[in-house]
Amino acid sequence: MKTISTWAAHGGTQGVYSHASEATGTEMTFAVFVPPQAKVAPCPVVTYLSGLTCTHANVMEKGEYRRAAAEHGLIVVCPDTSPRGEDVADDDAYDMGQGAGFYLDATEEPWARHFRMESYIRDELPAVIAANFPVDADRQSILGHSMGGHGALTLALKNPERYRACSAFAPIVAPIDVPWGQKALPAYLGRDEQSWRQYDACALIADGARFPEFLVDQGTGDNFLTEQLRPELFDKACAEAGIPLTLRMQPGYDHSYYFISTFMADHLDWHAKRLKG
Amino acid sequence: MKTISTWAAHGGTQGVYSHASEATGTEMTFAVFVPPQAKVAPCPVVTYLSGLTCTHANVMEKGEYRRAAAEHGLIVVCPDTSPRGEDVADDDAYDMGQGAGFYLDATEEPWARHFRMESYIRDELPAVIAANFPVDADRQSILGHSMGGHGALTLALKNPERYRACSAFAPIVAPIDVPWGQKALPAYLGRDEQSWRQYDACALIADGARFPEFLVDQGTGDNFLTEQLRPELFDKACAEAGIPLTLRMQPGYDHSYYFISTFMADHLDWHAKRLKG
Repeated sequence: MKTISTWAAHGGTQGVYSHASEATGTEMTFAVFVPPQAKVAPCPVVTYLSGLTCTHANVMEKGEYRRAAAEHGLIVVCPDTSPRGEDVADDDAYDMGQGAGFYLDATEEPWARHFRMESYIRDELPAVIAANFPVDADRQSILGHSMGGHGALTLALKNPERYRACSAFAPIVAPIDVPWGQKALPAYLGRDEQSWRQYDACALIADGARFPEFLVDQGTGDNFLTEQLRPELFDKACAEAGIPLTLRMQPGYDHSYYFISTFMADHLDWHAKRLKG
Repeated sequence: MKTISTWAAHGGTQGVYSHASEATGTEMTFAVFVPPQAKVAPCPVVTYLSGLTCTHANVMEKGEYRRAAAEHGLIVVCPDTSPRGEDVADDDAYDMGQGAGFYLDATEEPWARHFRMESYIRDELPAVIAANFPVDADRQSILGHSMGGHGALTLALKNPERYRACSAFAPIVAPIDVPWGQKALPAYLGRDEQSWRQYDACALIADGARFPEFLVDQGTGDNFLTEQLRPELFDKACAEAGIPLTLRMQPGYDHSYYFISTFMADHLDWHAKRLKG
């Protein structure tokens, strides 16, 4: 692991690091906030997955997570959204290729070689974090925004033993049923729709996956609400499966970091209760 | 006044606006956060002045002021740091010209026509704000970072009847005695050193200007600390004049927004007490 930058912040340290990833075959950059409590004891780890077009930097600069993380003693890990580099496949569109990894392991060309974000987030990055930071690896949770909300929900549903809490801001909950997913899933996974279901939170629940409970915030002023996000589908899926869902429709909020930063402290409070309980 | 963007944030509205400025002869852009309390009553106004190279956007995105402003019911105004445009004089250096207005009224060519940031911040922008937002104009305060800390301290010392509180993050306190000022002051104001003293917080105090009290945070890991910032000179000037100064040397913090955002809530708490007292 290489240290790219570190800054004192909120009594702890905000850093940017990189490492040569086996999963993606590329150098991967990520941000980690270590709270002051880590000087005396290992701390729980919260992973935040970002949305389309983002890197580790967007939430690090605009997410306003450090105050609450320092209050609760949480390490916050912010990965990149895809492999990157000149020899990594890409697409001119903002919603395919670099910056749009969708937290899945691609099986189709030209993506299969590097686009292995599910393996990266689930297995490799947590091992790198555990080897280099004072983490209590038994206490992990995950959250994310938009495409990263999709990543958080699907990873939690597929690995309930791994994550003690999961929440999302304006998540993609049913990619099979919306344009972003209907473009990305066949491109990354091929035409067998059965293979798409493991990367669709609503389909996973319909197929029997479970998680103890979810918190979701969604702005009513979000331009992507009715076509791409459709939280009512997740509400229905959770209700039918008996999964407690706290779905908060936030009046007037859009899809930006002004929305995320407004409710970030609520989410970290919610995670802290479940990580320490 | 034109509205460029607005976002729901922390129960209020973060907006970006512009207007044709008489003072600078250019279109000037600024950011305003209006807290939820403004729906029922006029709110006090805090102006934040940014540092070299910044626009209104840096603190708006990275300053983390909205949570505390929403808690205390403060309108926060974030101006640009200079006039801008193709017909506005500039310099290739980051510390002269566009992005480096030093909150003064220039008298020298090629700057005198547009670089009138003191008049703009002191007179014109507050009138625009008062005409367009629900402000309690009798309750104003000012703070800033680096070059903007210089602006806040000098404006407060020259207009103590205007501002009820003043604080700064890593301010330039003695531009006459440091390289940034020794470059900018003669360029903007000419060779008469007497004309520089009205734009130097330490010189203003030595010449008799007074303000009730100041709060200053300064990181000990700030690369500009010993050559450009020299808070000990302001400490000495305040002590000799009997002005109460709370100077907090913050261990390990640098000159970045990770430093500013860590202590922003402390500053707004401090301003709120004095604005509402």
